[in-house]
Amino acid sequence: MPTDETTKPATWANIDSMRSLHPLPGVTMWPAAGDNLMINFVRIEPGAVVPLHQHPHEQAGTVIEGIIIMTIEDETRELRVGDVYVAPPNSIHGASAGPDGCLVVDVFSPPREDYLIPTE
Amino acid sequence: MPTDETTKPATWANIDSMRSLHPLPGVTMWPAAGDNLMINFVRIEPGAVVPLHQHPHEQAGTVIEGIIIMTIEDETRELRVGDVYVAPPNSIHGASAGPDGCLVVDVFSPPREDYLIPTE
Repeated sequence: MPTDETTKPATWANIDSMRSLHPLPGVTMWPAAGDNLMINFVRIEPGAVVPLHQHPHEQAGTVIEGIIIMTIEDETRELRVGDVYVAPPNSIHGASAGPDGCLVVDVFSPPREDYLIPTE
Repeated sequence: MPTDETTKPATWANIDSMRSLHPLPGVTMWPAAGDNLMINFVRIEPGAVVPLHQHPHEQAGTVIEGIIIMTIEDETRELRVGDVYVAPPNSIHGASAGPDGCLVVDVFSPPREDYLIPTE
């Protein structure tokens, strides 16, 4: 019988060997989940769009490469390395990539159940 | 009386203008919190160390610049851009920077209460 919850193993992963999802044309995701949060690499190709949507999961994110054009509710901003956002639960948000595309990291709490499903 | 939780405002921030914390020599943090999660830029200078510690908050993270040498429980790995980890609640973990230092992003759920306190 487990007596110490700390014995749960850590996750270590690299984008080159992680399971990927392609939820939209030009959008690739590589999610890794714990119990309470999910950290998700997202690559958006130039011209690709993540349409406005909403979900009850709180979301935050930052940029690793390139520019993401992010809309949350009634505000749209261009985000680069060093920028960060937090999108409240159920806020309406969407994104597109700058001219060279982008690699960003999104975080969700709780984890997005729909991204836990193996797709390839 | 609020009838729609989506009216809570988004957070938009940049590392150059965010509140910073200096919890350890050579370690600077820039946290942004929502209700359920916290996203935290962490710069570790060459030679600086985050000693082994633990907390009930689940933690995940990835690298923006440089190399972080990360220990979780009995495993130590060098992480670069494209690597990701998830450290379970209460797991013992610590870190140091590679030869050129590093800028990483850590995420916590729930938010670290001790990083919410304004320090400067």
